[in-house]
Amino acid sequence: MSVYGGIETGGSKWECAIGTGPDDLRATETIPTTTPEETINRAIAFFDREGPVVAIGIGSFGPVDQKLTSATWGHITSTPKPGWAYTDIGQEVRRRLAVPVAFDTDVNAAALGEHRWGAAQGLDTFCYITVGTGIGGGGIAGGKLLHGLVHPEFGHMRIPHDRRRDSFDGICPYHGDCWEGLASGRAIEARWGRAAVDLEGDEAVWALEAHYLALGLVSVICVLSPERILLGGGVMNQAGLLSRTNGEVSRLMNGYLDHATDITAPELGSWSGVLGAIALAETA
Amino acid sequence: MSVYGGIETGGSKWECAIGTGPDDLRATETIPTTTPEETINRAIAFFDREGPVVAIGIGSFGPVDQKLTSATWGHITSTPKPGWAYTDIGQEVRRRLAVPVAFDTDVNAAALGEHRWGAAQGLDTFCYITVGTGIGGGGIAGGKLLHGLVHPEFGHMRIPHDRRRDSFDGICPYHGDCWEGLASGRAIEARWGRAAVDLEGDEAVWALEAHYLALGLVSVICVLSPERILLGGGVMNQAGLLSRTNGEVSRLMNGYLDHATDITAPELGSWSGVLGAIALAETA
Repeated sequence: MSVYGGIETGGSKWECAIGTGPDDLRATETIPTTTPEETINRAIAFFDREGPVVAIGIGSFGPVDQKLTSATWGHITSTPKPGWAYTDIGQEVRRRLAVPVAFDTDVNAAALGEHRWGAAQGLDTFCYITVGTGIGGGGIAGGKLLHGLVHPEFGHMRIPHDRRRDSFDGICPYHGDCWEGLASGRAIEARWGRAAVDLEGDEAVWALEAHYLALGLVSVICVLSPERILLGGGVMNQAGLLSRTNGEVSRLMNGYLDHATDITAPELGSWSGVLGAIALAETA
Repeated sequence: MSVYGGIETGGSKWECAIGTGPDDLRATETIPTTTPEETINRAIAFFDREGPVVAIGIGSFGPVDQKLTSATWGHITSTPKPGWAYTDIGQEVRRRLAVPVAFDTDVNAAALGEHRWGAAQGLDTFCYITVGTGIGGGGIAGGKLLHGLVHPEFGHMRIPHDRRRDSFDGICPYHGDCWEGLASGRAIEARWGRAAVDLEGDEAVWALEAHYLALGLVSVICVLSPERILLGGGVMNQAGLLSRTNGEVSRLMNGYLDHATDITAPELGSWSGVLGAIALAETA
Protein backbone atom coordinates (compact mmCIF):
# COMPACT_ATOMS: atom_id res chain seq x y z
CA MET A 1 0.00 0.00 0.00
CA SER A 2 1.36 3.39 -1.00
CA VAL A 3 2.34 5.75 1.80
CA TYR A 4 1.24 9.37 1.45
CA GLY A 5 2.00 12.63 3.16
CA GLY A 6 -0.52 15.19 4.35
CA ILE A 7 -0.15 18.78 5.48
CA GLU A 8 -2.91 20.84 7.04
CA THR A 9 -1.72 24.42 7.09
CA GLY A 10 -3.53 26.46 9.70
CA GLY A 11 -3.21 30.03 10.81
CA SER A 12 -1.69 29.02 14.14
CA LYS A 13 -0.18 25.59 13.41
CA TRP A 14 0.58 23.13 10.66
CA GLU A 15 -0.16 19.43 11.07
CA CYS A 16 2.05 17.08 9.06
CA ALA A 17 1.47 13.35 8.79
CA ILE A 18 2.66 10.31 6.89
CA GLY A 19 0.58 7.16 6.50
CA THR A 20 -2.24 5.46 4.68
CA GLY A 21 -5.23 6.36 6.85
CA PRO A 22 -6.50 6.88 10.40
CA ASP A 23 -5.35 3.45 11.58
CA ASP A 24 -1.93 3.78 10.04
CA LEU A 25 -0.29 7.12 10.78
CA ARG A 26 3.43 6.41 10.79
CA ALA A 27 4.69 9.84 11.76
CA THR A 28 3.05 13.13 12.71
CA GLU A 29 4.33 16.56 13.66
CA THR A 30 2.71 19.80 14.74
CA ILE A 31 4.59 22.90 13.64
CA PRO A 32 3.72 26.41 14.89
CA THR A 33 2.88 28.80 12.05
CA THR A 34 5.57 31.50 12.11
CA THR A 35 7.01 33.01 8.92
CA PRO A 36 6.30 31.25 5.62
CA GLU A 37 9.98 30.41 5.15
CA GLU A 38 10.53 28.92 8.59
CA THR A 39 7.23 27.04 8.62
CA ILE A 40 7.68 25.53 5.17
CA ASN A 41 11.30 24.60 6.00
CA ARG A 42 10.17 22.69 9.07
CA ALA A 43 7.53 20.83 7.08
CA ILE A 44 10.07 19.92 4.39
CA ALA A 45 12.47 18.70 7.09
CA PHE A 46 9.75 16.47 8.55
CA PHE A 47 9.15 14.74 5.22
CA ASP A 48 12.90 14.53 4.48
CA ARG A 49 13.40 12.82 7.81
CA GLU A 50 10.28 10.60 7.99
CA GLY A 51 9.68 9.93 4.27
CA PRO A 52 9.73 8.89 1.57
CA VAL A 53 6.09 9.34 0.46
CA VAL A 54 4.69 8.81 -3.03
CA ALA A 55 2.73 12.08 -3.01
CA ILE A 56 1.68 14.88 -0.66
CA GLY A 57 -1.71 16.48 -0.15
CA ILE A 58 -1.99 19.98 1.27
CA GLY A 59 -5.15 21.43 2.79
CA SER A 60 -4.52 25.10 3.37
CA PHE A 61 -6.12 28.08 5.02
CA GLY A 62 -7.10 30.54 2.33
CA PRO A 63 -8.17 32.00 0.10
CA VAL A 64 -6.00 29.77 -2.09
CA ASP A 65 -5.40 29.17 -5.77
CA GLN A 66 -6.26 25.54 -6.42
CA LYS A 67 -6.82 25.85 -10.18
CA LEU A 68 -4.49 23.34 -11.81
CA THR A 69 -4.08 25.47 -14.91
CA SER A 70 -3.11 28.61 -13.00
CA ALA A 71 0.45 29.97 -12.83
CA THR A 72 -0.08 30.57 -9.11
CA TRP A 73 -1.53 27.14 -8.38
CA GLY A 74 -0.61 26.10 -4.85
CA HIS A 75 -0.44 29.64 -3.48
CA ILE A 76 -2.29 31.19 -0.60
CA THR A 77 -3.73 34.36 -2.16
CA SER A 78 -5.35 37.40 -0.50
CA THR A 79 -5.22 36.30 3.14
CA PRO A 80 -5.25 39.07 5.75
CA LYS A 81 -2.80 36.98 7.83
CA PRO A 82 0.36 39.16 8.12
CA GLY A 83 3.25 37.94 5.98
CA TRP A 84 1.27 35.17 4.29
CA ALA A 85 -0.53 36.86 1.39
CA TYR A 86 0.48 35.40 -1.98
CA THR A 87 2.71 32.72 -0.48
CA ASP A 88 3.61 29.73 -2.63
CA ILE A 89 3.24 26.50 -0.70
CA GLY A 90 2.23 23.84 -3.23
CA GLN A 91 4.87 24.51 -5.86
CA GLU A 92 7.60 24.93 -3.23
CA VAL A 93 6.80 21.60 -1.57
CA ARG A 94 6.60 19.87 -4.94
CA ARG A 95 9.94 21.29 -6.07
CA ARG A 96 11.86 20.63 -2.88
CA LEU A 97 10.51 17.16 -2.16
CA ALA A 98 10.24 16.16 -5.82
CA VAL A 99 6.88 14.41 -5.37
CA PRO A 100 3.43 15.05 -6.86
CA VAL A 101 1.39 17.47 -4.76
CA ALA A 102 -2.39 17.95 -4.55
CA PHE A 103 -3.52 21.28 -3.10
CA ASP A 104 -6.91 22.45 -1.84
CA THR A 105 -8.53 24.36 0.99
CA ASP A 106 -8.26 23.03 4.55
CA VAL A 107 -12.03 22.53 4.65
CA ASN A 108 -12.24 20.70 1.33
CA ALA A 109 -9.44 18.45 2.59
CA ALA A 110 -11.34 17.85 5.84
CA ALA A 111 -14.50 17.09 3.84
CA LEU A 112 -12.55 14.56 1.81
CA GLY A 113 -11.16 12.96 4.99
CA GLU A 114 -14.63 12.61 6.47
CA HIS A 115 -15.91 11.24 3.16
CA ARG A 116 -13.18 8.62 3.06
CA TRP A 117 -13.02 7.54 6.69
CA GLY A 118 -15.49 9.52 8.78
CA ALA A 119 -19.03 10.80 9.05
CA ALA A 120 -19.65 11.42 5.35
CA GLN A 121 -18.90 7.99 3.94
CA GLY A 122 -21.10 7.11 1.00
CA LEU A 123 -22.60 10.59 0.64
CA ASP A 124 -22.73 12.41 -2.68
CA THR A 125 -23.52 15.91 -1.47
CA PHE A 126 -22.48 17.21 1.94
CA CYS A 127 -20.57 20.01 3.63
CA TYR A 128 -17.83 20.25 6.21
CA ILE A 129 -17.89 23.50 8.16
CA THR A 130 -15.37 24.55 10.78
CA VAL A 131 -16.30 27.08 13.44
CA GLY A 132 -13.02 28.01 15.06
CA THR A 133 -10.94 31.18 14.98
CA GLY A 134 -12.74 31.83 11.70
CA ILE A 135 -15.55 30.05 9.86
CA GLY A 136 -14.82 28.06 6.73
CA GLY A 137 -16.73 25.57 4.67
CA GLY A 138 -16.12 23.08 1.93
CA GLY A 139 -17.65 19.90 0.75
CA ILE A 140 -18.64 17.60 -2.03
CA ALA A 141 -21.51 18.12 -4.50
CA GLY A 142 -22.53 15.39 -6.89
CA GLY A 143 -19.48 13.39 -5.81
CA LYS A 144 -16.92 16.14 -6.55
CA LEU A 145 -15.11 18.56 -4.25
CA LEU A 146 -16.63 22.04 -4.37
CA HIS A 147 -14.62 24.23 -6.69
CA GLY A 148 -15.74 26.98 -8.99
CA LEU A 149 -14.35 30.32 -9.93
CA VAL A 150 -12.20 29.86 -6.83
CA HIS A 151 -13.54 27.86 -3.88
CA PRO A 152 -16.28 28.24 -1.29
CA GLU A 153 -15.90 30.93 1.36
CA PHE A 154 -18.89 30.10 3.56
CA GLY A 155 -17.69 32.41 6.34
CA HIS A 156 -18.30 35.55 4.33
CA MET A 157 -22.02 35.13 3.68
CA ARG A 158 -24.15 37.91 5.09
CA ILE A 159 -26.71 36.89 7.71
CA PRO A 160 -29.46 38.85 9.46
CA HIS A 161 -28.05 40.87 12.36
CA ASP A 162 -30.57 42.31 14.77
CA ARG A 163 -28.68 45.15 16.42
CA ARG A 164 -31.32 45.53 19.11
CA ARG A 165 -30.41 42.05 20.32
CA ASP A 166 -26.67 42.26 19.51
CA SER A 167 -25.06 45.66 19.00
CA PHE A 168 -21.64 44.12 18.28
CA ASP A 169 -20.29 45.32 14.90
CA GLY A 170 -18.54 42.08 13.92
CA ILE A 171 -14.84 41.41 13.44
CA CYS A 172 -14.39 40.71 9.75
CA PRO A 173 -11.88 43.20 8.31
CA TYR A 174 -13.65 43.01 4.94
CA HIS A 175 -17.33 42.76 5.85
CA GLY A 176 -17.80 43.55 9.52
CA ASP A 177 -20.85 41.49 10.42
CA CYS A 178 -20.70 38.61 7.94
CA TRP A 179 -21.16 35.06 9.30
CA GLU A 180 -17.53 34.80 10.41
CA GLY A 181 -17.67 38.39 11.63
CA LEU A 182 -20.52 37.54 14.02
CA ALA A 183 -20.18 33.86 14.88
CA SER A 184 -16.51 32.82 14.76
CA GLY A 185 -14.41 32.18 17.84
CA ARG A 186 -12.73 35.56 17.41
CA ALA A 187 -16.13 37.23 17.20
CA ILE A 188 -17.29 35.54 20.40
CA GLU A 189 -14.15 36.62 22.23
CA ALA A 190 -14.37 40.20 20.95
CA ARG A 191 -18.08 40.52 21.79
CA TRP A 192 -18.04 39.03 25.26
CA GLY A 193 -14.47 39.87 26.32
CA ARG A 194 -13.53 36.27 27.03
CA ALA A 195 -12.61 33.29 24.87
CA ALA A 196 -15.41 30.90 23.91
CA VAL A 197 -13.92 28.21 26.11
CA ASP A 198 -14.27 30.50 29.15
CA LEU A 199 -17.93 31.26 28.48
CA GLU A 200 -19.24 27.78 29.12
CA GLY A 201 -22.83 27.65 30.31
CA ASP A 202 -23.54 31.33 29.65
CA GLU A 203 -27.07 31.17 28.25
CA ALA A 204 -27.00 34.49 26.35
CA VAL A 205 -23.72 33.64 24.64
CA TRP A 206 -24.77 30.26 23.31
CA ALA A 207 -28.35 31.13 22.42
CA LEU A 208 -27.00 33.92 20.22
CA GLU A 209 -24.25 31.70 18.81
CA ALA A 210 -26.69 28.92 17.89
CA HIS A 211 -28.95 31.49 16.26
CA TYR A 212 -26.15 32.90 14.11
CA LEU A 213 -24.81 29.48 13.20
CA ALA A 214 -28.31 28.39 12.17
CA LEU A 215 -28.83 31.46 9.98
CA GLY A 216 -25.71 30.63 7.99
CA LEU A 217 -26.59 26.95 7.84
CA VAL A 218 -30.01 27.77 6.40
CA SER A 219 -28.27 29.54 3.51
CA VAL A 220 -25.97 26.57 2.95
CA ILE A 221 -28.99 24.25 2.97
CA CYS A 222 -30.93 26.46 0.54
CA VAL A 223 -28.02 26.68 -1.91
CA LEU A 224 -26.64 23.13 -1.81
CA SER A 225 -29.31 20.92 -0.25
CA PRO A 226 -26.63 18.82 1.44
CA GLU A 227 -27.53 15.38 2.72
CA ARG A 228 -25.45 16.10 5.81
CA ILE A 229 -23.53 19.00 7.32
CA LEU A 230 -20.55 18.25 9.54
CA LEU A 231 -19.87 21.01 12.04
CA GLY A 232 -16.31 20.94 13.36
CA GLY A 233 -13.88 23.43 14.87
CA GLY A 234 -13.08 24.44 18.43
CA VAL A 235 -16.23 26.48 19.07
CA MET A 236 -18.35 23.39 18.44
CA ASN A 237 -16.78 21.73 21.48
CA GLN A 238 -19.17 23.76 23.63
CA ALA A 239 -21.56 21.27 25.24
CA GLY A 240 -25.05 21.50 23.82
CA LEU A 241 -24.20 23.89 20.99
CA LEU A 242 -24.68 21.33 18.21
CA SER A 243 -28.11 20.27 19.41
CA ARG A 244 -29.17 23.85 20.04
CA THR A 245 -28.02 24.81 16.53
CA ASN A 246 -30.04 21.95 15.07
CA GLY A 247 -33.10 23.22 16.91
CA GLU A 248 -32.60 26.73 15.54
CA VAL A 249 -32.23 25.44 11.97
CA SER A 250 -35.54 23.55 12.30
CA ARG A 251 -37.24 26.60 13.73
CA LEU A 252 -35.95 28.82 10.91
CA MET A 253 -36.80 26.35 8.12
CA ASN A 254 -40.30 26.13 9.62
CA GLY A 255 -41.26 22.91 7.86
CA TYR A 256 -40.69 24.32 4.39
CA LEU A 257 -39.04 21.16 3.06
CA ASP A 258 -40.20 17.64 3.82
CA HIS A 259 -36.66 16.50 4.52
CA ALA A 260 -34.21 17.94 7.04
CA THR A 261 -30.47 18.02 6.47
CA ASP A 262 -28.67 16.03 9.13
CA ILE A 263 -26.33 18.37 11.06
CA THR A 264 -23.79 16.48 13.09
CA ALA A 265 -20.19 16.31 14.31
CA PRO A 266 -17.26 15.08 12.21
CA GLU A 267 -15.99 11.66 13.24
CA LEU A 268 -12.28 12.26 12.77
CA GLY A 269 -12.27 15.22 15.17
CA SER A 270 -9.17 17.38 14.86
CA TRP A 271 -7.70 14.82 12.43
CA SER A 272 -10.18 15.49 9.62
CA GLY A 273 -7.88 18.00 7.97
CA VAL A 274 -4.56 16.19 7.92
CA LEU A 275 -6.17 12.83 7.14
CA GLY A 276 -8.09 14.55 4.38
CA ALA A 277 -4.78 15.90 3.09
CA ILE A 278 -3.55 12.30 2.90
CA ALA A 279 -6.72 11.34 0.98
CA LEU A 280 -6.08 14.33 -1.26
CA ALA A 281 -2.53 13.12 -1.93
CA GLU A 282 -3.96 10.05 -3.63
CA THR A 283 -5.37 12.35 -6.32
CA ALA A 284 -2.04 14.12 -6.98
CA MET B 1 -31.69 13.56 -34.99
CA SER B 2 -34.04 12.50 -32.20
CA VAL B 3 -36.95 14.79 -31.43
CA TYR B 4 -37.65 15.49 -27.76
CA GLY B 5 -40.44 17.05 -25.78
CA GLY B 6 -40.07 19.61 -23.03
CA ILE B 7 -42.50 20.92 -20.42
CA GLU B 8 -41.85 23.85 -18.15
CA THR B 9 -44.51 23.81 -15.47
CA GLY B 10 -44.98 27.22 -13.91
CA GLY B 11 -47.35 28.52 -11.30
CA SER B 12 -49.29 30.56 -13.85
CA LYS B 13 -48.61 28.74 -17.13
CA TRP B 14 -47.01 25.66 -18.63
CA GLU B 15 -44.84 25.86 -21.72
CA CYS B 16 -44.74 22.75 -23.89
CA ALA B 17 -42.42 22.30 -26.84
CA ILE B 18 -41.24 19.67 -29.28
CA GLY B 19 -37.93 19.89 -31.13
CA THR B 20 -34.20 19.43 -30.97
CA GLY B 21 -33.03 22.86 -29.82
CA PRO B 22 -33.54 26.62 -30.09
CA ASP B 23 -33.28 26.65 -33.88
CA ASP B 24 -35.61 23.73 -34.34
CA LEU B 25 -38.79 24.03 -32.26
CA ARG B 26 -41.41 22.18 -34.26
CA ALA B 27 -44.40 22.87 -32.03
CA THR B 28 -45.00 24.91 -28.90
CA GLU B 29 -48.00 25.61 -26.71
CA THR B 30 -48.64 27.75 -23.67
CA ILE B 31 -51.22 26.31 -21.29
CA PRO B 32 -52.65 28.29 -18.35
CA THR B 33 -52.09 26.56 -15.01
CA THR B 34 -55.53 25.66 -13.67
CA THR B 35 -56.25 22.42 -11.82
CA PRO B 36 -53.66 19.63 -11.99
CA GLU B 37 -56.03 17.37 -13.90
CA GLU B 38 -57.01 19.90 -16.55
CA THR B 39 -53.48 21.24 -17.00
CA ILE B 40 -51.88 17.81 -17.33
CA ASN B 41 -54.63 16.70 -19.74
CA ARG B 42 -53.93 19.66 -22.00
CA ALA B 43 -50.19 18.94 -21.99
CA ILE B 44 -50.82 15.28 -22.80
CA ALA B 45 -53.16 16.32 -25.63
CA PHE B 46 -50.42 18.57 -27.06
CA PHE B 47 -47.91 15.72 -27.24
CA ASP B 48 -50.56 13.29 -28.55
CA ARG B 49 -51.35 15.72 -31.33
CA GLU B 50 -47.85 17.04 -32.15
CA GLY B 51 -45.69 14.01 -31.30
CA PRO B 52 -44.26 11.50 -31.31
CA VAL B 53 -41.16 12.30 -29.24
CA VAL B 54 -38.50 9.87 -28.01
CA ALA B 55 -38.51 11.27 -24.47
CA ILE B 56 -39.87 14.17 -22.43
CA GLY B 57 -38.10 16.44 -19.98
CA ILE B 58 -40.05 18.28 -17.30
CA GLY B 59 -38.77 21.29 -15.39
CA SER B 60 -41.24 21.99 -12.62
CA PHE B 61 -41.98 24.58 -9.98
CA GLY B 62 -41.38 23.05 -6.60
CA PRO B 63 -40.42 21.81 -4.22
CA VAL B 64 -40.29 18.59 -6.21
CA ASP B 65 -39.16 15.01 -5.72
CA GLN B 66 -36.50 14.36 -8.37
CA LYS B 67 -34.84 11.39 -6.63
CA LEU B 68 -34.93 8.53 -9.13
CA THR B 69 -35.14 5.92 -6.38
CA SER B 70 -38.11 7.55 -4.65
CA ALA B 71 -41.66 6.19 -4.84
CA THR B 72 -42.87 9.75 -5.35
CA TRP B 73 -40.33 10.63 -8.04
CA GLY B 74 -41.85 13.13 -10.45
CA HIS B 75 -44.18 14.69 -7.89
CA ILE B 76 -44.49 18.29 -6.82
CA THR B 77 -44.28 18.05 -3.02
CA SER B 78 -45.04 20.67 -0.34
CA THR B 79 -45.92 23.64 -2.55
CA PRO B 80 -48.18 26.28 -1.01
CA LYS B 81 -49.91 26.65 -4.41
CA PRO B 82 -53.57 25.69 -3.77
CA GLY B 83 -54.52 22.30 -5.17
CA TRP B 84 -51.01 21.41 -6.29
CA ALA B 85 -49.33 19.97 -3.20
CA TYR B 86 -48.22 16.35 -3.71
CA THR B 87 -49.27 16.24 -7.36
CA ASP B 88 -47.78 13.54 -9.58
CA ILE B 89 -46.63 14.96 -12.89
CA GLY B 90 -43.64 12.88 -14.00
CA GLN B 91 -45.12 9.42 -13.50
CA GLU B 92 -48.46 10.47 -15.01
CA VAL B 93 -46.83 11.86 -18.16
CA ARG B 94 -44.60 8.77 -18.46
CA ARG B 95 -47.54 6.40 -18.09
CA ARG B 96 -49.95 8.19 -20.41
CA LEU B 97 -47.47 8.99 -23.19
CA ALA B 98 -45.45 5.79 -22.72
CA VAL B 99 -42.08 7.54 -23.17
CA PRO B 100 -39.08 7.97 -20.86
CA VAL B 101 -39.37 11.10 -18.71
CA ALA B 102 -36.65 13.15 -16.99
CA PHE B 103 -37.85 15.38 -14.16
CA ASP B 104 -36.16 18.24 -12.33
CA THR B 105 -36.82 21.73 -11.01
CA ASP B 106 -37.68 24.52 -13.46
CA VAL B 107 -34.47 26.34 -12.56
CA ASN B 108 -32.23 23.29 -12.96
CA ALA B 109 -33.85 22.77 -16.36
CA ALA B 110 -33.24 26.42 -17.26
CA ALA B 111 -29.61 26.08 -16.11
CA LEU B 112 -29.22 23.05 -18.35
CA GLY B 113 -30.74 24.94 -21.29
CA GLU B 114 -28.33 27.84 -20.82
CA HIS B 115 -25.45 25.37 -20.47
CA ARG B 116 -26.34 23.64 -23.70
CA TRP B 117 -27.29 26.58 -25.91
CA GLY B 118 -27.02 29.83 -23.98
CA ALA B 119 -24.89 31.94 -21.65
CA ALA B 120 -23.34 29.09 -19.66
CA GLN B 121 -21.80 27.05 -22.46
CA GLY B 122 -18.53 25.43 -21.45
CA LEU B 123 -18.88 26.28 -17.75
CA ASP B 124 -18.40 23.70 -15.03
CA THR B 125 -19.89 25.58 -12.09
CA PHE B 126 -22.57 28.24 -12.48
CA CYS B 127 -26.06 29.17 -11.28
CA TYR B 128 -29.30 30.14 -12.93
CA ILE B 129 -31.52 32.29 -10.73
CA THR B 130 -34.98 33.53 -11.61
CA VAL B 131 -36.41 36.60 -9.94
CA GLY B 132 -40.07 36.59 -10.88
CA THR B 133 -43.21 35.94 -8.86
CA GLY B 134 -40.87 34.04 -6.53
CA ILE B 135 -37.11 33.53 -6.45
CA GLY B 136 -35.61 30.19 -7.41
CA GLY B 137 -32.15 28.98 -8.21
CA GLY B 138 -30.46 25.97 -9.67
CA GLY B 139 -27.29 25.25 -11.51
CA ILE B 140 -24.38 23.00 -12.20
CA ALA B 141 -21.44 22.30 -9.88
CA GLY B 142 -18.46 20.33 -11.09
CA GLY B 143 -20.35 19.57 -14.30
CA LYS B 144 -23.41 18.07 -12.60
CA LEU B 145 -26.86 19.52 -11.92
CA LEU B 146 -27.26 20.61 -8.31
CA HIS B 147 -29.05 17.91 -6.36
CA GLY B 148 -28.64 16.81 -2.80
CA LEU B 149 -31.00 15.77 -0.08
CA VAL B 150 -33.64 17.39 -2.29
CA HIS B 151 -32.68 20.33 -4.53
CA PRO B 152 -31.61 23.94 -4.06
CA GLU B 153 -34.16 26.43 -2.74
CA PHE B 154 -32.18 29.64 -3.10
CA GLY B 155 -35.24 31.81 -2.47
CA HIS B 156 -35.51 30.75 1.16
CA MET B 157 -32.10 31.90 2.38
CA ARG B 158 -32.23 34.51 5.11
CA ILE B 159 -30.65 37.87 4.29
CA PRO B 160 -30.04 40.96 6.43
CA HIS B 161 -33.19 43.06 6.71
CA ASP B 162 -32.73 46.56 8.09
CA ARG B 163 -36.21 47.46 9.31
CA ARG B 164 -35.25 51.12 9.71
CA ARG B 165 -34.77 51.26 5.94
CA ASP B 166 -37.57 48.83 5.05
CA SER B 167 -40.28 48.06 7.57
CA PHE B 168 -42.02 45.59 5.22
CA ASP B 169 -42.44 42.18 6.88
CA GLY B 170 -41.93 40.07 3.76
CA ILE B 171 -44.41 37.82 1.98
CA CYS B 172 -43.07 34.28 2.43
CA PRO B 173 -45.76 32.19 4.14
CA TYR B 174 -43.02 30.06 5.75
CA HIS B 175 -40.28 32.57 6.58
CA GLY B 176 -41.63 36.10 6.22
CA ASP B 177 -38.54 38.04 5.25
CA CYS B 178 -36.39 35.43 3.52
CA TRP B 179 -34.82 36.35 0.14
CA GLU B 180 -37.99 35.58 -1.78
CA GLY B 181 -40.04 37.17 0.98
CA LEU B 182 -38.24 40.50 0.51
CA ALA B 183 -37.07 40.60 -3.11
CA SER B 184 -39.46 38.61 -5.33
CA GLY B 185 -41.96 40.23 -7.67
CA ARG B 186 -44.76 39.47 -5.21
CA ALA B 187 -42.77 41.14 -2.43
CA ILE B 188 -42.20 44.25 -4.54
CA GLU B 189 -45.89 44.49 -5.35
CA ALA B 190 -46.95 43.95 -1.74
CA ARG B 191 -44.44 46.48 -0.38
CA TRP B 192 -45.04 49.30 -2.85
CA GLY B 193 -48.67 48.64 -3.76
CA ARG B 194 -47.98 48.33 -7.46
CA ALA B 195 -46.52 45.62 -9.68
CA ALA B 196 -42.78 45.81 -10.41
CA VAL B 197 -43.49 46.65 -14.02
CA ASP B 198 -45.41 49.76 -12.92
CA LEU B 199 -42.59 51.02 -10.70
CA GLU B 200 -40.11 51.73 -13.46
CA GLY B 201 -37.64 54.46 -12.66
CA ASP B 202 -38.57 54.71 -8.97
CA GLU B 203 -35.17 55.16 -7.34
CA ALA B 204 -36.09 53.91 -3.86
CA VAL B 205 -37.69 50.74 -5.24
CA TRP B 206 -34.76 49.66 -7.36
CA ALA B 207 -31.99 50.69 -4.99
CA LEU B 208 -33.60 48.50 -2.33
CA GLU B 209 -34.21 45.67 -4.80
CA ALA B 210 -30.60 45.67 -6.03
CA HIS B 211 -29.43 45.66 -2.41
CA TYR B 212 -31.55 42.64 -1.49
CA LEU B 213 -30.67 40.76 -4.66
CA ALA B 214 -26.97 41.39 -4.00
CA LEU B 215 -27.21 40.14 -0.41
CA GLY B 216 -28.57 36.81 -1.61
CA LEU B 217 -26.07 36.60 -4.45
CA VAL B 218 -23.20 37.08 -2.00
CA SER B 219 -24.38 33.98 -0.14
CA VAL B 220 -24.61 32.01 -3.38
CA ILE B 221 -21.08 33.15 -4.30
CA CYS B 222 -19.70 32.25 -0.87
CA VAL B 223 -21.24 28.76 -0.91
CA LEU B 224 -20.71 27.72 -4.54
CA SER B 225 -18.09 30.05 -6.01
CA PRO B 226 -19.85 29.99 -9.38
CA GLU B 227 -17.94 31.09 -12.46
CA ARG B 228 -21.08 32.87 -13.62
CA ILE B 229 -24.54 33.65 -12.31
CA LEU B 230 -27.39 34.06 -14.79
CA LEU B 231 -30.17 36.28 -13.46
CA GLY B 232 -33.45 35.75 -15.26
CA GLY B 233 -37.13 36.22 -14.48
CA GLY B 234 -39.54 39.07 -15.08
CA VAL B 235 -38.23 41.39 -12.36
CA MET B 236 -34.82 41.46 -14.07
CA ASN B 237 -36.43 43.14 -17.10
CA GLN B 238 -36.27 46.41 -15.16
CA ALA B 239 -33.76 48.62 -16.99
CA GLY B 240 -30.54 49.06 -15.04
CA LEU B 241 -31.33 46.51 -12.34
CA LEU B 242 -28.71 43.99 -13.47
CA SER B 243 -25.91 46.52 -13.53
CA ARG B 244 -27.00 48.05 -10.23
CA THR B 245 -27.08 44.58 -8.65
CA ASN B 246 -23.58 43.89 -9.93
CA GLY B 247 -22.41 47.10 -8.31
CA GLU B 248 -23.97 46.14 -4.99
CA VAL B 249 -22.35 42.69 -5.06
CA SER B 250 -18.93 44.31 -5.61
CA ARG B 251 -19.54 46.75 -2.81
CA LEU B 252 -20.59 43.98 -0.42
CA MET B 253 -17.73 41.63 -1.33
CA ASN B 254 -15.38 44.57 -0.75
CA GLY B 255 -12.43 43.08 -2.62
CA TYR B 256 -12.27 39.96 -0.46
CA LEU B 257 -11.61 37.60 -3.35
CA ASP B 258 -9.27 38.34 -6.26
CA HIS B 259 -11.84 37.11 -8.77
CA ALA B 260 -15.39 38.32 -9.24
CA THR B 261 -18.23 36.07 -10.35
CA ASP B 262 -19.69 37.28 -13.63
CA ILE B 263 -23.38 38.15 -13.07
CA THR B 264 -25.25 38.46 -16.31
CA ALA B 265 -28.51 37.78 -18.18
CA PRO B 266 -29.50 34.40 -19.62
CA GLU B 267 -29.26 34.23 -23.41
CA LEU B 268 -32.34 32.15 -24.07
CA GLY B 269 -34.64 34.63 -22.34
CA SER B 270 -38.01 33.17 -21.46
CA TRP B 271 -37.11 30.03 -23.42
CA SER B 272 -34.41 28.83 -20.99
CA GLY B 273 -36.85 26.63 -19.11
CA VAL B 274 -38.63 24.78 -21.87
CA LEU B 275 -35.45 24.42 -23.94
CA GLY B 276 -33.72 23.15 -20.83
CA ALA B 277 -36.54 20.64 -20.44
CA ILE B 278 -35.74 19.42 -23.95
CA ALA B 279 -32.06 19.12 -22.99
CA LEU B 280 -33.17 17.27 -19.87
CA ALA B 281 -35.19 14.85 -22.01
CA GLU B 282 -31.96 13.64 -23.58
CA THR B 283 -30.95 12.27 -20.16
CA ALA B 284 -34.21 10.36 -19.63
